[in-house]
Amino acid sequence: MSPRQPASRTRVRRLPEKQSGDRAALDRLLDTALVAHVAVVDNGQPFVVPVAFARDGDRLIIHGSNASRLFRTLADGASTCLTATITDGVVVARSAFESSMHYRSAMVLGRCTELEGEAKAVALQHLTDRLLPGRASEARPASAKELIATKVLALPLDEWSLKVSDGAPDDAADDLDLPVWAGVVPIEHRFGEPVDAPDLRFDVAVPDYVRAWPDGRC
Amino acid sequence: MSPRQPASRTRVRRLPEKQSGDRAALDRLLDTALVAHVAVVDNGQPFVVPVAFARDGDRLIIHGSNASRLFRTLADGASTCLTATITDGVVVARSAFESSMHYRSAMVLGRCTELEGEAKAVALQHLTDRLLPGRASEARPASAKELIATKVLALPLDEWSLKVSDGAPDDAADDLDLPVWAGVVPIEHRFGEPVDAPDLRFDVAVPDYVRAWPDGRC
Repeated sequence: MSPRQPASRTRVRRLPEKQSGDRAALDRLLDTALVAHVAVVDNGQPFVVPVAFARDGDRLIIHGSNASRLFRTLADGASTCLTATITDGVVVARSAFESSMHYRSAMVLGRCTELEGEAKAVALQHLTDRLLPGRASEARPASAKELIATKVLALPLDEWSLKVSDGAPDDAADDLDLPVWAGVVPIEHRFGEPVDAPDLRFDVAVPDYVRAWPDGRC
Repeated sequence: MSPRQPASRTRVRRLPEKQSGDRAALDRLLDTALVAHVAVVDNGQPFVVPVAFARDGDRLIIHGSNASRLFRTLADGASTCLTATITDGVVVARSAFESSMHYRSAMVLGRCTELEGEAKAVALQHLTDRLLPGRASEARPASAKELIATKVLALPLDEWSLKVSDGAPDDAADDLDLPVWAGVVPIEHRFGEPVDAPDLRFDVAVPDYVRAWPDGRC
């Protein structure tokens, strides 16, 4: 754990009071969000693509098709930015100007390294268990052919920033007497009831680890 | 409505069967997601930042501080990519390889135009009403000073792509007999019970339009 944060590139310039240097809070966010948005640049044009990801200690693991231009570009060491955001609520202030959102957002800058061999297989198992804790021991692991078709990349948790917006509406004193409601409307993200695949074997039930996912995890 | 889509830059190359040219489906996604991720490039380094946004016909409206480097760069006409993603579920296949997620993701490429004067004020009202339908008629609109402090940008819905992943796990025939559960675990995004601001006037109740937000909207 060697956070160079806040580095100049990741220093939060806007609303710096929302910047957090709390590595534990960063890890909690990265271990909760299921999807991040990752960018590559092609001829000056950025492309932003959603990816599943998993934190593995001091790095993030992502995976994709070997035929994907995004993943080929990242594997070649292109500068990237991976941002994971969870929305926690809508801040309803008396003024439109102070209305905003509760959110947690982590930005990680750097370059990916492609994993190969045993490290690649282990990272894929980790990704499976992150998305579905307990699943890696039950799902069929990737075959040799599937491994060849897949790129697995690691992005170091080195240059990062964390921005957290919480708290009550922050209306100006002059606005407090307006006869207008103010408050926060929480946003909740939950897993629903599992739905069997149509071709599921008749003698297989939903495993405990699927039902054991905590509420509000995504 | 003049979708140049699928243009070559936005043609979905990976899993092209998930590409949708359905403008109505694009609009539904853009009118549901509360937050998008927008990118700018600085010296070859992409930065991906979450933003609230609103679709206004054939364009997207975003806003931010006049002092924000991101918004200044976008206002200067930098090439950008705005991606809005909603996760709908976890696809639990018998093989790790086929396990994935249900999601809808829209990518919009282009350059922003800065709005000024009446168009700027109207767009801000639209943004307020998008985030909280009915709110614009009640919240205090932006003052002249607040308008100066804010940049409001429009990104045309011209070059876009939509990718939708749904459906049951697609395991290989050889895997169907594995004694392993397969199915989909839905992900639900909901608004919770509104929380009054601590300094709320005693005689102001939660307005109907706050409670009227439909479930699963974010």
